[in-house]
Amino acid sequence: MRIDRLIGRIRETENPSALGLDTKIDYVPDALARAHTGAAEAIYAFNSALLKALSDIIPCVKIQVAYYEALGTAGMECFKRTVERAQALGYVVIADAKRGDIGSTAEAYSAAYLRDDSPFPADFLTVNPYFGTDGVSPFIADCAVSGKGIFALAKTSNPSGKEFQDVILRDGRPMHELVAEKIAEWGEYLIGKEGFSSVGAVVGATYPTQGAALRRKMPRAFFLLPGYGAQGASAEHLAACFDERGEGAVVAASRSIICAHIRRGADDFVSAAREEAIRMREEIRNALRRV
Amino acid sequence: MRIDRLIGRIRETENPSALGLDTKIDYVPDALARAHTGAAEAIYAFNSALLKALSDIIPCVKIQVAYYEALGTAGMECFKRTVERAQALGYVVIADAKRGDIGSTAEAYSAAYLRDDSPFPADFLTVNPYFGTDGVSPFIADCAVSGKGIFALAKTSNPSGKEFQDVILRDGRPMHELVAEKIAEWGEYLIGKEGFSSVGAVVGATYPTQGAALRRKMPRAFFLLPGYGAQGASAEHLAACFDERGEGAVVAASRSIICAHIRRGADDFVSAAREEAIRMREEIRNALRRV
Repeated sequence: MRIDRLIGRIRETENPSALGLDTKIDYVPDALARAHTGAAEAIYAFNSALLKALSDIIPCVKIQVAYYEALGTAGMECFKRTVERAQALGYVVIADAKRGDIGSTAEAYSAAYLRDDSPFPADFLTVNPYFGTDGVSPFIADCAVSGKGIFALAKTSNPSGKEFQDVILRDGRPMHELVAEKIAEWGEYLIGKEGFSSVGAVVGATYPTQGAALRRKMPRAFFLLPGYGAQGASAEHLAACFDERGEGAVVAASRSIICAHIRRGADDFVSAAREEAIRMREEIRNALRRV
Repeated sequence: MRIDRLIGRIRETENPSALGLDTKIDYVPDALARAHTGAAEAIYAFNSALLKALSDIIPCVKIQVAYYEALGTAGMECFKRTVERAQALGYVVIADAKRGDIGSTAEAYSAAYLRDDSPFPADFLTVNPYFGTDGVSPFIADCAVSGKGIFALAKTSNPSGKEFQDVILRDGRPMHELVAEKIAEWGEYLIGKEGFSSVGAVVGATYPTQGAALRRKMPRAFFLLPGYGAQGASAEHLAACFDERGEGAVVAASRSIICAHIRRGADDFVSAAREEAIRMREEIRNALRRV
């Protein structure tokens, strides 16, 4: 199961973080961009260099599909090649696509990502749970066969997420707790040997109080934590989303790593990213030690 | 504004229905499939023949992106060509992708579909509202410039939709009414000359009681109604989602039209689809006359 592989890779690297390849052409240094025909080719070269340089310290990659879809079919080809390149280098790959629809359509999305012969061969897919159980079960059915996994949105990292996700239900709970309860149910029968399910949860690191409550609600769900760095969450914020052993979650950071060279006004994006990735790793390790 | 164009086309054809091109290779007759290399090419030929045969009676096409994504980059190229072919034939095109994410990522999805220079040049995009206002506003900002529109999910057509969408809030309302209130707010400043907003709503035709309540809640939102035919909603179910003039909604039907030849055991999918499309048009007209 890929969830066990993810946990194993995090232990080997002692680094529960995911490199977020939310790559825009603006992030690619001019010289590299000029050396390639078209934005998609330049972005692939940029991604590829980062993946090669960070494979010994980062266990996992989260690729935001939207940035590739925005470049049309050339972008989707770049996405596919980035997934394959990352897997060849040993990374566990999360396709961050937030897909979700009625059952028959969810089957098609699942076929795109979560089968052994999927054209976009990710290890995990992020899923929007708004359609409820029959919209999520096709993804889970494929995971049961392929060993892949999903991360369903429980509490998103953006400010307006609260409008629907934090609304209080008649029984006194916030909406995101009802969603968490379903996520825990959906994952019940897909527990790996490390005790975590192939059905994980996206929990915005920007909301530590809710994160801690959700950790208790979903003890078997591995958490994907967006919001670190550019979105404002600190390592202390994150710690509440890990379990008492300092496991059970992976922190995604994109702009803080892949744009590190821009903040420095430098062209050497690989060295800048590596330094930032190491700084982030140490910061998370320290925060987890203090818990 | 595309919403005015959609309304105009519906009036011209006197047919508030959308052809759902949720095309799977299984739907393509063997002879046609054998004449093409690869599933994506065969599906394009199938779509293209249907589009050509139905352009005088159907005003609008809803293309479910999932079925194309499932075929990888070749599928996405087929999707793009289908959109372009449909527009060249005069259809208004809805990309049914249910996209949604935090603001910075929603911008990228919007760039893929809703700008004048988008690589997938649809007229409308379906959007998942679960991220709240800041996740939806990038789509709306692009619509304000391009004149395109969105349909945000208010109440989906699938049985499990009720798990989150019908849950009762502390103030006594079901969740989907809160979502509807936001959809109405989001669309307030993008009203076209026919009185409807560029921000429409997806309302499952399978739930007529909720549909009627949502019609009252969102008087300016044009409704996209999935669930007719294969999913079980009848024309009577739909009527409640239209306004007193019999306008304000478009009914999507996919399998009932594009698989009509399979139910008959025939290969002539074009004639079968045309007959079914006419039957559906008459059924909807009759149901609207009775309201």
